[in-house]
Amino acid sequence: MRYAVPGTGEVGRTLAGRLVELGYEVTLGARAKDNPVAREWATVAGGRAHAGTFAEAAAAADVVVNAVGGRVALAALRAAGAENLDGKVLVDVSNPLAVEEGEVRLDPVESDSVGERIQREFPHARVVKTLNTVNCRVMVDPGRVPGEHNLFVCGEDDGAKDQVRELLGEFGWPAERVLDLGGIRAARAVEMLLPLWITLFGRFGHADFNVEVRRAR
Amino acid sequence: MRYAVPGTGEVGRTLAGRLVELGYEVTLGARAKDNPVAREWATVAGGRAHAGTFAEAAAAADVVVNAVGGRVALAALRAAGAENLDGKVLVDVSNPLAVEEGEVRLDPVESDSVGERIQREFPHARVVKTLNTVNCRVMVDPGRVPGEHNLFVCGEDDGAKDQVRELLGEFGWPAERVLDLGGIRAARAVEMLLPLWITLFGRFGHADFNVEVRRAR
Repeated sequence: MRYAVPGTGEVGRTLAGRLVELGYEVTLGARAKDNPVAREWATVAGGRAHAGTFAEAAAAADVVVNAVGGRVALAALRAAGAENLDGKVLVDVSNPLAVEEGEVRLDPVESDSVGERIQREFPHARVVKTLNTVNCRVMVDPGRVPGEHNLFVCGEDDGAKDQVRELLGEFGWPAERVLDLGGIRAARAVEMLLPLWITLFGRFGHADFNVEVRRAR
Repeated sequence: MRYAVPGTGEVGRTLAGRLVELGYEVTLGARAKDNPVAREWATVAGGRAHAGTFAEAAAAADVVVNAVGGRVALAALRAAGAENLDGKVLVDVSNPLAVEEGEVRLDPVESDSVGERIQREFPHARVVKTLNTVNCRVMVDPGRVPGEHNLFVCGEDDGAKDQVRELLGEFGWPAERVLDLGGIRAARAVEMLLPLWITLFGRFGHADFNVEVRRAR
């Protein structure tokens, strides 16, 4: 299995680094071919780590993990090329977050979501929304947070969700802690958790937290 | 302590009923003086249970618990009268929910909240947002859900939040399970949890669930 991780920020480098540790060939994708962050990452992360454009990364990959911010995800995936996404599992971990005049704002919100927009624009990609509800260090090391806390997955393709569950298992998330919310429309619900996450981050002063869904059986 | 509970729906009747059980005088408030649901509730719930208009209920109360839906909360509280809310703790448990063409929609969402709108329109009320993230039966009986799951409170008045924590304690929520999110602006974050709640309700087939916030110390 070969991965593309578009997005050279902390989320992208963290996910790509963990995938390399797990033994996969990984290309960190950037807009420009000579992106210095991507090139440095590939040098430091070792022989299975590569740097390339969004299109080069996606073309070489079996699975694409979108780690570009939600506001620019569609532009990045267009640059990757629909032909390089067709039939592939596309994991979207982004949030449609921007800071405007000192205020955190989401766009889209409630009546649409990044997850749905990606699936709508790339109907032959097998989009799975997950991981966007936790900090990137928790994404790849859930033991940073105590307890049986949960992740959510949603998407239209059950086979793609099964494949993503296996990857999440390799990251340290047991299958029973990954709650399937159904189709990609549920991306709205998980993207709308971001304001609570930001509020709790401000109260706790660190990002090592998550929620555990408790329920009567 | 005397309570007003504007709102004769399931949420209002459940909260009002529990308050009567706890020994308080409670007036269930309705738009019309002769609301049959409120009158029947007062008859069945016993000697400390009363029915009245929004204004009668608020005028007689030390604490007002808004259990009217978030879309009509401002109208109900205007009918209650600003002079009957001034200086009083006003607990807002509502969500700005409506079903439009078969879709659940929130309004306001993200750039504003019901909690903030109430505090803005009634600046002398001591608004505390809480309880809106769980089903009404869980509100008054958290033991329906296993685990150390959490509630959130937010508002501008620390004394009001302390008073609400005491009430939540009487409902069965230990103080350490009630997370203070800060000012009333955080009402946005907790009202935006509703789509996840609705999604989980659909998956589980029942409302006896909640989230527990897990964090590294």
